[in-house]
Formats: sequence, structure tokens, C-alpha cells
Amino acid sequence: MAANSFGNLFRITTAGESHGPAMAVIIDGCPPGLEVDEAMIQAELDRRRPGQSELTTARKEGDKVQILAGVFEGKTTGAPILLEIRNEDARSSDYDQIKDLYRPSHADYTYRQKYGHKDPRGGGRASARETANWVAAGAIAKKILLQEGITIYAGVTAVGPIQTELPVEELDWNNVETNPVRCPDPETAKRMEEYILEIKEKGDTVGGVITCVISGCPPGLGAPVFHKLDADLAHAMLSINAAKGFEIGSGFAGATMQGSAHNDVWVNGGSGMRTKTNYSGGLQAGITNGMPVYFRVAFKPVSTLMMDQQTVNEAGEEVILKAKGRHDPCVVPRAVPIVEAMGALVIVEHCMLKMKYQ
Amino acid sequence: MAANSFGNLFRITTAGESHGPAMAVIIDGCPPGLEVDEAMIQAELDRRRPGQSELTTARKEGDKVQILAGVFEGKTTGAPILLEIRNEDARSSDYDQIKDLYRPSHADYTYRQKYGHKDPRGGGRASARETANWVAAGAIAKKILLQEGITIYAGVTAVGPIQTELPVEELDWNNVETNPVRCPDPETAKRMEEYILEIKEKGDTVGGVITCVISGCPPGLGAPVFHKLDADLAHAMLSINAAKGFEIGSGFAGATMQGSAHNDVWVNGGSGMRTKTNYSGGLQAGITNGMPVYFRVAFKPVSTLMMDQQTVNEAGEEVILKAKGRHDPCVVPRAVPIVEAMGALVIVEHCMLKMKYQ
Amino acid sequence: MAANSFGNLFRITTAGESHGPAMAVIIDGCPPGLEVDEAMIQAELDRRRPGQSELTTARKEGDKVQILAGVFEGKTTGAPILLEIRNEDARSSDYDQIKDLYRPSHADYTYRQKYGHKDPRGGGRASARETANWVAAGAIAKKILLQEGITIYAGVTAVGPIQTELPVEELDWNNVETNPVRCPDPETAKRMEEYILEIKEKGDTVGGVITCVISGCPPGLGAPVFHKLDADLAHAMLSINAAKGFEIGSGFAGATMQGSAHNDVWVNGGSGMRTKTNYSGGLQAGITNGMPVYFRVAFKPVSTLMMDQQTVNEAGEEVILKAKGRHDPCVVPRAVPIVEAMGALVIVEHCMLKMKYQ
Amino acid sequence: MAANSFGNLFRITTAGESHGPAMAVIIDGCPPGLEVDEAMIQAELDRRRPGQSELTTARKEGDKVQILAGVFEGKTTGAPILLEIRNEDARSSDYDQIKDLYRPSHADYTYRQKYGHKDPRGGGRASARETANWVAAGAIAKKILLQEGITIYAGVTAVGPIQTELPVEELDWNNVETNPVRCPDPETAKRMEEYILEIKEKGDTVGGVITCVISGCPPGLGAPVFHKLDADLAHAMLSINAAKGFEIGSGFAGATMQGSAHNDVWVNGGSGMRTKTNYSGGLQAGITNGMPVYFRVAFKPVSTLMMDQQTVNEAGEEVILKAKGRHDPCVVPRAVPIVEAMGALVIVEHCMLKMKYQ
Repeated sequence: MAANSFGNLFRITTAGESHGPAMAVIIDGCPPGLEVDEAMIQAELDRRRPGQSELTTARKEGDKVQILAGVFEGKTTGAPILLEIRNEDARSSDYDQIKDLYRPSHADYTYRQKYGHKDPRGGGRASARETANWVAAGAIAKKILLQEGITIYAGVTAVGPIQTELPVEELDWNNVETNPVRCPDPETAKRMEEYILEIKEKGDTVGGVITCVISGCPPGLGAPVFHKLDADLAHAMLSINAAKGFEIGSGFAGATMQGSAHNDVWVNGGSGMRTKTNYSGGLQAGITNGMPVYFRVAFKPVSTLMMDQQTVNEAGEEVILKAKGRHDPCVVPRAVPIVEAMGALVIVEHCMLKMKYQ
Repeated sequence: MAANSFGNLFRITTAGESHGPAMAVIIDGCPPGLEVDEAMIQAELDRRRPGQSELTTARKEGDKVQILAGVFEGKTTGAPILLEIRNEDARSSDYDQIKDLYRPSHADYTYRQKYGHKDPRGGGRASARETANWVAAGAIAKKILLQEGITIYAGVTAVGPIQTELPVEELDWNNVETNPVRCPDPETAKRMEEYILEIKEKGDTVGGVITCVISGCPPGLGAPVFHKLDADLAHAMLSINAAKGFEIGSGFAGATMQGSAHNDVWVNGGSGMRTKTNYSGGLQAGITNGMPVYFRVAFKPVSTLMMDQQTVNEAGEEVILKAKGRHDPCVVPRAVPIVEAMGALVIVEHCMLKMKYQ
Repeated sequence: MAANSFGNLFRITTAGESHGPAMAVIIDGCPPGLEVDEAMIQAELDRRRPGQSELTTARKEGDKVQILAGVFEGKTTGAPILLEIRNEDARSSDYDQIKDLYRPSHADYTYRQKYGHKDPRGGGRASARETANWVAAGAIAKKILLQEGITIYAGVTAVGPIQTELPVEELDWNNVETNPVRCPDPETAKRMEEYILEIKEKGDTVGGVITCVISGCPPGLGAPVFHKLDADLAHAMLSINAAKGFEIGSGFAGATMQGSAHNDVWVNGGSGMRTKTNYSGGLQAGITNGMPVYFRVAFKPVSTLMMDQQTVNEAGEEVILKAKGRHDPCVVPRAVPIVEAMGALVIVEHCMLKMKYQ
Repeated sequence: MAANSFGNLFRITTAGESHGPAMAVIIDGCPPGLEVDEAMIQAELDRRRPGQSELTTARKEGDKVQILAGVFEGKTTGAPILLEIRNEDARSSDYDQIKDLYRPSHADYTYRQKYGHKDPRGGGRASARETANWVAAGAIAKKILLQEGITIYAGVTAVGPIQTELPVEELDWNNVETNPVRCPDPETAKRMEEYILEIKEKGDTVGGVITCVISGCPPGLGAPVFHKLDADLAHAMLSINAAKGFEIGSGFAGATMQGSAHNDVWVNGGSGMRTKTNYSGGLQAGITNGMPVYFRVAFKPVSTLMMDQQTVNEAGEEVILKAKGRHDPCVVPRAVPIVEAMGALVIVEHCMLKMKYQ
């Protein structure tokens, strides 16, 4: 089943628990000769790292990555690449008081049911700490895509009820790293930031939406049946912790439209084919048409609250959960590099599949 | 890559083109001893079949399934099951006038880019005819689930701007087969039907939304990292032709909420654990918690219109596409059994994975 | 687990029982544009077909293949290819007397243990009839290889105690189809034929060895760890019914040698690198070095005898098995095209893997 | 393709080069609750470790394993297990003089052809150092098997021309660890040891054969088509460095026999079914029949000699290779735990597959 692997031709396999000694990812299928170093991976990890702003958890993790295999003298060799991040600030003691409880909307109960135990150290593999592995691997995937002229940008476009009114083609991705919310619309970013701090003040949390645009995909990327590019993207995005929805192109709004309005009319753009509109989101029948691929991912509010909650313990008794630990009031700013990383893994996989036919 | 296979432990592999001689699916991993016959599979296929009402395409296909392997004296043997449907009413001539065109929002151009040709016979593997294979295989998956006490129901909850106001837990699935729209809310069904006929009259098409509920899943089904049950469901649903969005539980609405409202509080229900609310959609960390699993799938309007459209031909010249052929004004009524089938395949896969640990 | 699939990038998935209605294979991953027709597949099937000479079973099967998907106007489309062979002469009644017995060295008992039943109709999926699927798919694989300048030849080099004394590089593959044993050495072929007829006369059976040579492989085909080309070939060959051994290059004889004699010394052959000797069998570290790849496969004698045998029935009672049915006195002549087919599937898989890196 | 993974339900994924910083393996699919510690893994690694006797390379590696994930408080959690071994005595300088040469029967040339470079540090992934990962993972697989009552023993039964005359059922596995050759027949062991030292003295190397017996397999383990247990074992064994042949049961000798002698007659053994002889090697149609599974693996002589050899450099010039480095005169004593480990991985995989049906 390979439940801890993602991808086929470019495959990552991961291990590591939130409060264990290390996180690690093996990347199998990376072509030889690619320039890779720890700094480029670290740059992506630093975007995901806890403790980077007031909006995120106070857990301190350097998240220092080491390349332990697959790279020699600064270049990939074609052998599997091993990346490792040692965990530093894992205060398991924070979790002592909750070890017999089933926290609301947490994995405690489902873990117990699946594995016969629940990892008392903060979620084990269900913790979002696992996504450090994905971001590290994604940094290498992005590097491959860059060589192919493919770029992938994501940003926060909604936080709770606050959302940007800008259409996707007007989003300026240069703005993303200029504000702690990672919103590509600076006006809205400010309001989002205030809103998150207000929510944090109350000990509550809030959800949000991330929009992602992939440009430069050659037409013909994808497959028409079970590995539609959008189906693989949906799989990737719903794999991210707290993700509850995915839509490509027009998405749920498209369901309300009529075909005469929704159809993307082909025009000969001189330098090549393009469509007047892009409700399709850059693909038909799961295969890219040369227009930008874009999609949105919905994230629920973080389940760990800094307020008392009613719940049940393992003995079936109703008890009060007094939360401790260190958590994010809103997960979407840190999820931006994760969305990009998972998107990059999917696109690289399909690039490799395409090579077989040309 | 196995781009025409779905699932691992319970794996289907499909073949067949819309206008070729036959559709076929091989099901690998079905346990021995299951009672299976052609009638039970046919019953599901008849729900997906073209020509079943005024709301669907006039293409006539008996869609008669034959079991050619894996079943002996009415029971599965443990060997792979081969199901075959011969195509009957494949009027390729309908497609002559469009063979040099790139139809708007169709797979013509993307196929040409991927394969170096476009199948001139109505979309080849990109045609929704492929889903007959899925529904046939899904009938067997549903049978397995029924033995485990798991039921899966889907119905149309929105057509264009018309949607039911009933919350998911009040939908009565017995209503689905009582109206041609397959809406579980009879009042709304009538309005949807009128709307579709109106749209059809104009030669236009319209999108919609299908809601699916899976009840009776034991807690502990799923996996916490790359095969989260919801991620696998998203993959399955986005594989369906015209699907543009997927949301589990609270979905996109959940992104606007605060954690204190969204958290599903555990209570000891006497006969077992349950949650007061079910914004999670029946799972945490990709693993079932015993509450019903529910999700929504958005479908765009069908791309083939019965009206003139501007487009471009293979020579790059702008031309008028005069549509012929026989198509659905709204795809969602026929997509209901497809959603159920793909949902059933995902759940059976995870049931088999779970057996390993118990 | 996909226990009825073979290969990844070029993957076959098979179904069908010896005495069911049909055999079928879906080939996923064949590049588009390849010229394929039923005649070329039929030619290979006719080499495997029962009833082709006195040396083989009298079961009459036309083994007529039909292409039902994936080929349009004589060329592959990139879609999965469906090949189907309807079974004709399946006399299940022959099997009535043995339905409660566990035949010696047959799959009856192991099937019962695995599936809870034993297919009473001649072995079900354990029958060598399944290999018709492999030979059909292998015909397409061979066609791809031919375009790459790769040829694959197999022939019988031992029958019971009779074996050719010719070294592998002196075998003349043009001789294989000139004698019913399919031995590339005509002198030895005659003695083998006589021996098999003698054995058949007694109602007994005999084993043998097939040697296979693959020429024209570009250097660099294969992988150094778990998909060594020779490991994949071993897997493929041991999948064939009655196969009991595999050796690449020097094989078991190599185990008796010293390194100074066994090492293949590199020389600059002018037109490229080559080795003076080829004990390695054309590869190092599982990757081709440009020299011919060759290997040998051992087959045990057929288990069905035309003589009385002692055995046990399902009630545990010792009984006499009076054999009926129609079987081969020696399986190796018909296994020649099967060895070639499985070899071709492995090489095509690795050709596709290699394309990714160039 | 996952060329660095082995297995499906119980899957290992490996990384690490002979002269890089570390070797690592991720084990995915291990059931929760299994008692695992570093000592039990270390015990197996110590059997494979270089420098353990006069018969092996002088390279010094502590091969200290660390468990970095998947085990908590001495028990597996169901999460992937990460095992890591840091490399210590990697003298890359030994390889300087050979970095432009293609060593005879080494992977230098084939690596260059596959990856566009050759790892100048002693073979990279083609080095047998990789098998430390397999042995570490195999220790856990063996533990699972032990709980199921399945034992797996291997030993050296031939070194060059010297082989034990004992039949497989008379081999006493308790003898294996009592002599440095790991031969289960102490008389023969002595002669083998002398022979290896003699060969070593000359700077030469020699091949050998390992026999492996797996006892206690329940009947019904395996699959009848592409995952025959023996086909999977063949794949596993040919994956081991220097392996050139595999035979199950009667193997190549079986090819010379007649069916009436080779058939394994069933008898009711009172406590269950068994066969009088076991030429089948414990399985029919790739599925275990309850008798011991046994097989033999042939290994060629090590390619690195301590004597001058003629070869060609990258410029195509004929040169003399003056060997340095530290290597084994005979690889089979250290290959014994590797054969056991790979055998254990295959059997565990099939145990997990079987659970699905019962």
C-alpha cells in the first residue's frame, strides 16, 4: 500500500514523528546532474518553520536539513536522496495532561481505533510536523520545474470571512513574502493579520483558503483517466493537514454556470493556441492545455484551542480539556510552502511521465 | 505509472474507447466466495446508461455486461474478475465534421499534445463512456461493503443555481430514484427538472453538485499520511469527467469558521463514542471516527452545446463549430451512480488495508 | 498488491481461467503510433498454441486473438490495449473424476488453502493457459524492441538428460522453428524429439532447459538496486509455470570459478567498448554493458501423467488417480515463446525507464 | 518505478552510498505493537559486518544502527520505521587511482552509461554496503515471522569446487555460526576455510552457493500468477550483489528428471497433509503446501582482485589496474544473513497478503 510514499516516477517516502528524534524523507527518481544544496532546501523549510512570526506557534525548531545521500559534490547522482531534520524542541511533557483524553477534532480517537494505541506525544505521524519532509522534497521538485520553465506560486486568499476580491490573474505573487499572512494582496493582508491576532487573543483559531497558480506547464502534461493532473493535485492537497476542500479552475462556482458561459473558447494567439477565458483551470480531461493551472484549497480552523473545551476521556467520562502546548491560531500562512511543495511533486511526476512519450 | 488502474489491494484496470468495440474492466483483489451475478451489476449500469430519460443523451446503449472471468457458479473465486460491455450505438460519423477542430473545453487539443493525435471518435478514453467500467466494478465493491454494514448513497443537491436547503443529515436517500434528476429532496427535484429542460431547449448545458454519504464505516478506516481516506476520495472524485471540486465535511464553508464553533465535541453516546456535530465529515487525520462520512462534488456544465460556437481548427484558423452528436444537457443525474461507485472502490480498498491490522 | 499485473511503466494485467469463457490482457503504457495488428500477435500465439505437433497436448484451441481497444486504424493510440482470446475446447467434464482429489505436484491443495476452494476445472489461474495472455502482450513488446534494434531469441537446450554441447554464442536461432522441439542445434533436436516421444509412449513426462539471448540492448539499461535487470528477469521467468531455476551468464557454474578467470576484461573494440569474455551475461550491477544478455531457465517435468498415481482425496483417504485429460509430455517446446514474451516485457519496461534520463 | 523500494504491503525503501555519510532504510507497513530494539537489529548486522574474520574484508565498520522513527517505548507504533547507520571507515582515497578506469566485471562502465557519471567512491549504490539496510530491515521481518512460527535459515553449501554432500534435510543449522564460512556441515566447512585462505593468498577470489530453508510456512502463502512465492524469492535473491543463479526445490536437476520420479505424492500424515518427497520445494503454483520451502543461490567470485589486471580507461586506452582497497576473497559467508533477510522480507509480504483473505 505504501501509505507513506507519494508519487511513482518521482517518489518520496517519509518517516518521523512530531516528538521523535528526527524527520526524514527519501526521494527516489530524481535525475542525475541536478545542482542541489542544503541552503536551497533550508530556504523553503524556513518558510514553513514554526516561530517565524506572531501569527504562528511559539515552538522553536531550527529545522536544519542535512543531505545524507544521493548528492555528491553539489550534484544529484541518480541515487535516492536522503534528507534528514533532527527534532529539537519536542516538549513531550506538554502532552502529559492530555494523554488519556480524546481531544475534539484531533486524531486521538481515530489513531486508537486504527493502531490500538494513540501516540501520546502530540499526534505522531498525524502531526503537521510531517510536512517538513514534504517541503524539503518539494524544494528539489521546484528546482527541476524551474529548469523546465515551470513556476508554482501559492498565497493566502481568505482567512475566516476576510478574502481578497482580486481575480486570480491579478494576484501579484511578489507580495506573498512581504507580509506574515502570505497574502498576495497587501491591502487584504493587513486586515487578515489583524483578524488573526484578534482571534489569537481570544484563544480561538480560524480557517482560510490558499490559491495556487502553476505557470509554464507545457501542453500535454497529465493523463486522461485515473491520473488526471487535477485528480492527482486533489489527492496531494487533501493530504495536507486540516485541508477540507479542493477546487480546480471554476470549481464549485462552475457548478452554477451554463455551458455557453463556461466553455473556454480557443483562439490562435499567434505564438500558439490559447483560450479566451480559463474556467477549465488550465486543463481538459486531466491534461494541461498550456494555460495557467490554478486551484484553491480550503483549510479548517486549527483544532487545538487556548480555551477550555468539553470532551471525553478513554474511560468514557466527560471531562474538561484545559489546553496547553504551543499552536498556530491560523494555519494557512505556514501552509503556503506546503501547498507549493505538494503541487511541485505532482507536476514533476507528470513531467517524468510525459518524457516517456517524446 | 499504471495510469489506467485505480486502487491497490482492490484494484481495477480498465480499457475501451467510446467508439471502439468494447469497454472492459479487470478487478484484482476481490475476495473469494462473494455472490456476484450479471443482474446486480446490470442494475447499477442501468442507472448510468444513456437514454434513460428526457434529461439525458439520446445515445442508445444497452450497456449489457458480461462476466468473463473470476466468477464460477455464482461466486467469486479469488481470481481477477473480467467484466465486458460491448459498444452498440457508436455513430462515429457524427464526429466527421469535428475531426479537424479543437472543440472548446474538450480534450481534443490536450490529446493532440499528449499523444500526437486526437481520437476523432468522440474523445476516446476521455469520454465519460469509460465510467461504465467504474460503475460495473463499483457494483461489486458495494456488495462487499454491504456485507460489512457499510452503505453509500449519493444524490443531486444542486443544478445550476437551484439547490436543496436541507442539511445533509435530513436528506432522504429513498427519494433519489423517484425522480429523473436523482435529487433526494422531491420539492427541489421538480424545480431542477424544469430548469434542465429549459436549458436543454436553448441548446445549452448546466452544472451541478452531488452530495454523497457513507454510513456504517467502522472507526479506524484510512491512513494518516498519504492515503488519508479523504485524500483518496478527492482523487477518486476528481477522476470523474467534468468534476471541478471536492469538499469533505464542512469544506469551503469550514474555512470561514472559528475553531470553537468547528470542533466536533466528543460525547459518550452510551453505545459508543460519537461527536455532537460532524463538521469533520466523519474523519480525523484521514481516518474514520465512526460518524457518517460525507462529501460534495462539483460538476461543470457539459462542454458539448447544441448551439454554434466559435473555435479554431488544426490549421489555426478560426471557424464555427456546428454541434451535432447526442449529449446530456446536465451530467449530474447520470453521475450519481459514478460517484457511488468510485466512493465504494475507495472504501473497499481501505477495508482491505484495515484487515491487515486486526 | 496487483497480483495479476506485471511491469510498471509498461504494465500488463491479465484475467481468465483455463476453462472459463475467455482469456484477456490489458496492456497499459504502450506508446502511441506503434503499428499493431492481430496477425502479428497471432503469429506468436500459434507458437504457444496446443495441438501444434505430436509433442504437445491434443487440446484444440484456435487461440484467436481480438484487439478490442487501444488500436485505431492499425496503430496504437496511447490508450490501454485490450486483447481477448475466447476459449473453445474446454472440456470440463474431463475433470469430473479428479474434482475431490489433490493431484501430486498440482495446485489443487495449495489453491484450497489459499482460496477456500479449488477450481475443479483444470487449475483455474494456475493453468498454463494464462500464458496465452503473456505471449499476446509479448508480441507487442517485441515489436517495440525491434524498433530499438533489440532482438530476443529463445530455444530448448536440454530435454531431460539430453543437452546441446554448443556454447551459447554458437547457437543458430534460425534453427529454432525448423524442428518441433525448438532446439537451435538440429543434431540434438532429433535426439530430443525421439526421447520425448519415448517418454510420451510410457505415459510419463520430462523436464528441460530453455536458453534465451537478448542482443542489441544499449548499455545503461537496468537499475542497480531492487530492479536489477537480472532480478526482474528472474522474477519473470520463475513466474512461468513449471519453472524451477534461473541463471544469468555463468550462473551456477560461475560459483565454482575464481575471479581471475571469471572477470570479463574490457577491451576497446574500436566501434565501442566490449569485454573479451561474457561470464557476466551482459550486465554488471543489474545494468547492461552492451554485450548480449543471456540466461537459462529450468523446467520441471509436467505433473499430469498418463499413468496411475497414488494420492489423497479431500477426505484424507489414499486413492488412485487415473489420469485423463490432454497434456504435454514435455512443456519446453511450447514454453519457448513464453520465455521470449516475458523477457520482452522486462526489457521494454527498462527501455521506458531509461528514456526518462536521456 | 520505485527502484529503491522492495515489497508492497511490507515495503522497504533505502538510501545511502558506500562512501557517503550514512545508510538508511524506511520500513513501511510494519504492524503496531511489535517489540523491536536496536540490539536485535545489531545482532543481524554484526553477522554481515566487514572485518569479522580473516575471510572477510579488513574495512572496519561498526555498523551501529539507530532507530529514529516508528518505535516508541520498545514497540512499533504502526508508523514507518527509520533505521540509520552512519558510515565510518570510508577511505575514498583508496579509489583515487581507479577513478578513470573501467574495472573488469564492476559497475563503473554501466553506471557511466546509465547516469552519465560513475561514482568514484567505490560503487555508490552498486556497492554491497547497501545490503546493510536490507539486513537491518530483515531483522524486523524475521521477528514478525518468528511470532507466526516461521523460521528462516541459510548457510554456505559450496565454495568454488568444494560442496557439502549432505542433502538439504540433513543440514544442521545450529552449525552455521560455529565456523567463519557459515557452512552447516562442519567437515566441509574446514575444507572451505582452507580453500578460501589459499585463494586469498594468491590475491584471487572465489564464488559459492548458499542454501536457504524456510520452515513453518502455513499452506496457502503466495499467489498463482505474477507474485508466485518462488518468483518473488528469485527476484529478491538476484537483487543481491554477485548473485548469478536461483533454483527452488529440485531446480536445474529437476529439468533432467521424469514426472513419475519428480511428482511429490500426497500422504495423509495424520496431523495433516504432507508429501513423501519435496522436489517442489514447498510450493505448487507459487503457493506454499506446508512442506519446507528451500532454494539455492549461486554467487560469482568477487570482481576486485589483489592482483594486476588488464583493462581500459575512460579515454579508451588499455591500461593495467593495480588493485588497492579492502575486499573479500569470498563473499558467501557474509551473504548468509543477506539471503535470510531478503527471504524474510518476501515471506512477511506474503503473510500480510494472506491475512486479507482470512
